[in-house]
Amino acid sequence: MSNAPTAPSSVPSGENGNPFTPARLALRRVLIDTYHENVAYMHRDCAVYRAEGFKALSKVEVRTNGRAILATLNVVDDASIVACGELGLSKSAFAQMGVDDGHSATVAQAEPPASIGALHRKLDGERMNAQEFRAIVQDIAAHRYSKIELTAFVVACNRDELDREEVFFLTEAMIAAGRKLDWHEGLVVDKHCIGGIPGNRTSMLVVPIVAAHGMLCPKTSSRAITSPAGTADTMEVLANVELPLEHLQDIVRQHRGCLAWGGTANLSPADDVLISVERPLSLDSPGQMVASILSKKISAGSSHLVLDIPIGPTAKVRSMPEAQRLRRLFEYVARRMKLSLDVVITDGRQPIGFGIGPVLEARDVMRVLENDPRAPNDLRQKSLRLAGRLIECDPDVRGGDGFAIARDILDSGRALAKMNAIIDAQGRKPFDHNQPALGALTFDVCAPDSGVVTRIDNLQLARIAGLAGAPKVSQAGVDLQCKLGDTVKKGAVLYRVHASFAADLEFARQACLKSSGYAIGAASDMAHVFVEF
Amino acid sequence: MSNAPTAPSSVPSGENGNPFTPARLALRRVLIDTYHENVAYMHRDCAVYRAEGFKALSKVEVRTNGRAILATLNVVDDASIVACGELGLSKSAFAQMGVDDGHSATVAQAEPPASIGALHRKLDGERMNAQEFRAIVQDIAAHRYSKIELTAFVVACNRDELDREEVFFLTEAMIAAGRKLDWHEGLVVDKHCIGGIPGNRTSMLVVPIVAAHGMLCPKTSSRAITSPAGTADTMEVLANVELPLEHLQDIVRQHRGCLAWGGTANLSPADDVLISVERPLSLDSPGQMVASILSKKISAGSSHLVLDIPIGPTAKVRSMPEAQRLRRLFEYVARRMKLSLDVVITDGRQPIGFGIGPVLEARDVMRVLENDPRAPNDLRQKSLRLAGRLIECDPDVRGGDGFAIARDILDSGRALAKMNAIIDAQGRKPFDHNQPALGALTFDVCAPDSGVVTRIDNLQLARIAGLAGAPKVSQAGVDLQCKLGDTVKKGAVLYRVHASFAADLEFARQACLKSSGYAIGAASDMAHVFVEF
Repeated sequence: MSNAPTAPSSVPSGENGNPFTPARLALRRVLIDTYHENVAYMHRDCAVYRAEGFKALSKVEVRTNGRAILATLNVVDDASIVACGELGLSKSAFAQMGVDDGHSATVAQAEPPASIGALHRKLDGERMNAQEFRAIVQDIAAHRYSKIELTAFVVACNRDELDREEVFFLTEAMIAAGRKLDWHEGLVVDKHCIGGIPGNRTSMLVVPIVAAHGMLCPKTSSRAITSPAGTADTMEVLANVELPLEHLQDIVRQHRGCLAWGGTANLSPADDVLISVERPLSLDSPGQMVASILSKKISAGSSHLVLDIPIGPTAKVRSMPEAQRLRRLFEYVARRMKLSLDVVITDGRQPIGFGIGPVLEARDVMRVLENDPRAPNDLRQKSLRLAGRLIECDPDVRGGDGFAIARDILDSGRALAKMNAIIDAQGRKPFDHNQPALGALTFDVCAPDSGVVTRIDNLQLARIAGLAGAPKVSQAGVDLQCKLGDTVKKGAVLYRVHASFAADLEFARQACLKSSGYAIGAASDMAHVFVEF
Repeated sequence: MSNAPTAPSSVPSGENGNPFTPARLALRRVLIDTYHENVAYMHRDCAVYRAEGFKALSKVEVRTNGRAILATLNVVDDASIVACGELGLSKSAFAQMGVDDGHSATVAQAEPPASIGALHRKLDGERMNAQEFRAIVQDIAAHRYSKIELTAFVVACNRDELDREEVFFLTEAMIAAGRKLDWHEGLVVDKHCIGGIPGNRTSMLVVPIVAAHGMLCPKTSSRAITSPAGTADTMEVLANVELPLEHLQDIVRQHRGCLAWGGTANLSPADDVLISVERPLSLDSPGQMVASILSKKISAGSSHLVLDIPIGPTAKVRSMPEAQRLRRLFEYVARRMKLSLDVVITDGRQPIGFGIGPVLEARDVMRVLENDPRAPNDLRQKSLRLAGRLIECDPDVRGGDGFAIARDILDSGRALAKMNAIIDAQGRKPFDHNQPALGALTFDVCAPDSGVVTRIDNLQLARIAGLAGAPKVSQAGVDLQCKLGDTVKKGAVLYRVHASFAADLEFARQACLKSSGYAIGAASDMAHVFVEF
């Protein structure tokens, strides 16, 4: 006699524990674009809908052709959209099934994802182990989590809810859920910035410099998440960035580098799903930032990474102690993953370069590569320093020599030549950095007083560039005329806003009226940061 | 010269800060049921879609007829669903506009809710003040939060993230966002259970008893959230529970009590929205539980509340220290709100009554009222004790006399008469407690060994009843034949499962095979709790 809950002795069982055949319906492509969300449509009078006891918005599992997807059910009362006996699928959901209209499919109530128990443990404040992280991340990558469950996971792992070993588990799990590249070389370098600084397109300079030095640098970047441009958005002004993985690998082998969008490589599919809820919430917790960045770098096959953490009053990281805490977390996980990591803490008090928005930033990058006198010096200096750090990963380079080597590569035009080779290999787009095609609708924001520029608000300038249309409208954005420490006269132009649509221009104008993002004062009022460079 | 960021001096401004007229489209009712989620459909080639730069799944604001709703945008490529120049709205979204097909409406990108800044502060782990809670709760009640934002709020307020003053602020904010009833009497009583115990329909006995004693008891209840039946679901077997507020008030004034669904009264509209994400996550944090319960009771005009906190190994609250912590939180907020609160901690080791599911529970309730010998004694005893506590709120009743008064009301048939009067007033439905209409498909779960019932798992039995179809299928559920401490012979029926659909029966059967929820052992193995009753 046992005290444990027991299986009943007299429950009549179906055959093989799977006693009913699931219902079959004819698939129908419904031309509704529900973005990343799979939606299934069933007619309210459909016998299957009635018999199965489905509810609107419940999750169903649709199977055919050896594939299975989960979809949210919408009930329809209009047979011209979907009739009895049919199962409608939204455009992208239909595409995932890989069959023609009218193909037969089964539909059944979806089981809750297997990892929901682990999610509940985390919501209760428990620590999770490696298996639990793997289970959750696999379910997320397979699109088995609803928006609500995704958000719950992201918020439950927010702030300091994950200890550093859990961050390691999460990183490992994200790598396990995706593809891992192997370049068959001992030294594969990469750089990354944690973000938050408008402009700041150093990758587009660092990659050609280190690739020209001969190092392998297969850089994949993200598109903008909340910012007015990501490296992929800006590179897309110059070249195709969505390349099949095989093609990308050929380019990297031939040119030692690339500047592509990471989405096609499927390196961390769970991360791509998580971003869909992190973005609207502007959430970016240390644990998830570390796992997201390091998982992608390790999946991309990197052995050495230089990581840029900018600090400043309107940067993601506001203080040196916070930056040091974040650095230690990155270093702990990198060591557990056997990735060689060099963290540099940089000046994040203002945007880097002049332009904010894809075309404006591409212009700045090309001017640096062309050694054009109009090139922004801060972008040039920062890129040279980061490239120098990476070059010092080369065992043949002495510590301290990297910067000079990088400068020589840039000044000699070898970086420009490498960039042009990469652009041609990826597929060049027409672009003239002397006459970039900018949004034709503009207004200027001018200094209300004479004085020194004492503060530039990264967040407000990013917001203004975003409202003006960036990055969706690549020609839109903000073009800075003054930077920190500049002395300006009353009425001098601080920056110009470019847009392509009247509504966008007006949104940006309203934001500028609320706050220009600039402060003019005395030189002594300027915020200082003490960083290595 | 100030150092604060300044408004620019030369930004040309639109007239009145509202320089563009929003786009107009003809509304079209799209017969897709998206449940509580408002969805708007626009054709991809529609000029407005292209000009405004909307994105799939972005939020749009639709205005007409003096009303405004927020909706999620789905982009359509099929003019038979929605054509250029039209704006499709899902069924319930269309209904909210209160206009006919073809009526003109404006559509614009929705502004983020005003309280998002406060939400971000909470996500960052900050404490919120009363104004911030008000702003968030008002936005939630007005359906301005997306599912992602709602979930973020719920998870950010989970566990001990709210201190007790914040719980008070949240309670106040929830009351402010809804309607507040005033009965113009000094003594308005109510009872509430925090839930988690299947069966347990004490409200349906307490209300007629205390109303028969002459106390005003305007009881509004919820439908089941995750459980197999709420009081509203069970009462609905006997009578109409969805009544216009004016009608409900008449019934209460005439009969001193009612047993209605709370949803129509709009007492805490934010809570109804929050439940839509709490339910799929099975989240029920102390702070939100206290705010949800007390806000509804205070909005309903209650002056005195008896609150039942059951404890047991499979109850919501597992231990006495946890129950005491929860009691103190309830008492703190109640005192701040000037509500007289009496918390009773009860035995939550097993379901109360025999039936789990609306019809089965209605049968149990009516048998107690009829003084039928087949009535479950635990339901009778617990209801009498709770009713006794409420009766002692009557200044003319001596402490300790309440139970005997309640018993006399029940035994004399006065409670039954009062219940019948309430049922008739709300609108009687045919029901015969001697021959309740139960789901015709059944199986029995039997004892695998002889011995004593030492454990009954509330959660597993609720799950089985839910899989069998309850509460959606009111005739479905579980009928317990044995309770804790009963001595059973091997093969004796522990409980019978009722369902109306084969698929439901099979789901329940599979769950029973995994675990019956019963443990048979020695009497000494039985879990004990030490509670007042």
